[in-house]
Amino acid sequence: MLKVEHIGIAVASLADAVPLYEKLLNAPCYKTETVESEQVLTAFFRQGDTKIELLEATGPGSPIARFLEKKGAGMHHIAFEVDNIEAEMQRLAAAGFTLLQDKPKPGADNKLICFLHPKDTSGVLVELCQERR
Amino acid sequence: MLKVEHIGIAVASLADAVPLYEKLLNAPCYKTETVESEQVLTAFFRQGDTKIELLEATGPGSPIARFLEKKGAGMHHIAFEVDNIEAEMQRLAAAGFTLLQDKPKPGADNKLICFLHPKDTSGVLVELCQERR
Repeated sequence: MLKVEHIGIAVASLADAVPLYEKLLNAPCYKTETVESEQVLTAFFRQGDTKIELLEATGPGSPIARFLEKKGAGMHHIAFEVDNIEAEMQRLAAAGFTLLQDKPKPGADNKLICFLHPKDTSGVLVELCQERR
Repeated sequence: MLKVEHIGIAVASLADAVPLYEKLLNAPCYKTETVESEQVLTAFFRQGDTKIELLEATGPGSPIARFLEKKGAGMHHIAFEVDNIEAEMQRLAAAGFTLLQDKPKPGADNKLICFLHPKDTSGVLVELCQERR
């Protein structure tokens, strides 16, 4: 793991949450992006070397819609940047962690991503992400 | 806000969670510290410019004990480093955020801290922290 690349926060509405986080962080939202495959609309803020990613569901089948229904708005995942996602997936599987994907999938922000099951990580949804090259 | 200083994760037991996070992050826990006033035992990991702080309750009155009872283990708060915590508290109060402390209080890791009420921040418990000088 190289660093905390971003922290994902599930919100009911980006229209409400983006101006709220602009006030909170005293920094502008610099990008929004839809990830069709995940049915999410994302909004990004820079905070030092890390990003805050707000996540809104764009359909009822979205993992974010299910999360909001179950737990309400709040912290959703921590994403760690890795240099070689396939090597890191192998290392973590061998160490006993459960991967939620067999192979990396495309995520927002030009990344390849893979999630770990929260049951193995004290309830934290962990994302691995690697810049697509 | 200068950067994400750390991410706080509530765990049932540091004895279990520290070796787990050492495997997950592929990095050693470099410090543990008790914060008597909060009844928490903390363990720190470095990840780039940010830290991961695991939090175990040391008594039933601990905010972490109440969190675990209500929500179970998982992400507890995001701490943002600020240069001048009193000025930042004033800015955020004026912007409509609810502060959980009237004045900064001592936290772990030689910091002065203040929390914001999650009702104003899309369900996220936000900590402001400033290095004690």
